[in-house]
Amino acid sequence: MRRKSFEDVPCSVAQFLEVAGEWWTMLVIRDAFLGVTRFDDFQTRLGISRNVLTQRLEHLVGHGVFERVAYQENPPRYDYRLTDKGRAMWTVVNAMRQWGDDWAAPDGPPVVATHKACGHQVNAVTVCDHCGERLGPHTMTVSAGPGDPEGTILPPHLR
Amino acid sequence: MRRKSFEDVPCSVAQFLEVAGEWWTMLVIRDAFLGVTRFDDFQTRLGISRNVLTQRLEHLVGHGVFERVAYQENPPRYDYRLTDKGRAMWTVVNAMRQWGDDWAAPDGPPVVATHKACGHQVNAVTVCDHCGERLGPHTMTVSAGPGDPEGTILPPHLR
Repeated sequence: MRRKSFEDVPCSVAQFLEVAGEWWTMLVIRDAFLGVTRFDDFQTRLGISRNVLTQRLEHLVGHGVFERVAYQENPPRYDYRLTDKGRAMWTVVNAMRQWGDDWAAPDGPPVVATHKACGHQVNAVTVCDHCGERLGPHTMTVSAGPGDPEGTILPPHLR
Repeated sequence: MRRKSFEDVPCSVAQFLEVAGEWWTMLVIRDAFLGVTRFDDFQTRLGISRNVLTQRLEHLVGHGVFERVAYQENPPRYDYRLTDKGRAMWTVVNAMRQWGDDWAAPDGPPVVATHKACGHQVNAVTVCDHCGERLGPHTMTVSAGPGDPEGTILPPHLR
């Protein structure tokens, strides 16, 4: 339950982690979205031990989030590239970024994201893909789904 | 860097954590969105020690994510209620839920979210609030912002 502090890292995702708890793996994913693919680059940027990073990357490769692609044969060297499953984590990383920008960036966003299509600074909102209305905590009801018909995880008042 | 396994928990958020690493704090936030407010209820649902939960809730109260509201005076007892800052984390929790539903729920979503306004099962997408276009990892560019004018966190090719 120990974690290193991200308090001084100028990154809204890191600020989110600082508030919400240890979860530096998301910084590996963030870096991948920023174009980082090499072990040494991840390691230098995150400042974690090679041993810990090796374990974490193997975990992510094992779960199909990254794939290893050889870029050199002798000695063997690999790029770590996000799979479709890994790229789908973008919404989580981006939601963390938006939260950090909104709630934990007193000097303004450390990184500005600009929407290529319209040229405006990105303010990301979550909408329903059916009707396009903005979603929030009070816009939906929850019920037991096929993956857990008994609603084990739901509090009694929602079962 | 140790974490307990969430592999068997029938919750897409937990499945996301299983894949991406330890981060059970988000399950406290998730529970708060499900209407849980009492220490004992968080504790029972999460199965963590009272000591660890106390530390975690104090951390979240200290960072303004939860506020404590007395519901009984003698002995003093409190509800833990999300603040606006905490409620803003909904987008992160929801993005995790959506990812888990899409990528880590082979039997279907364990919890189904229904959009009250249109009555359809929620498929949450992220859009630009200016133009309404769907956002994704390749739809935006990033650059150094006011919170970090030197772009410390950006890889060299993006500075």
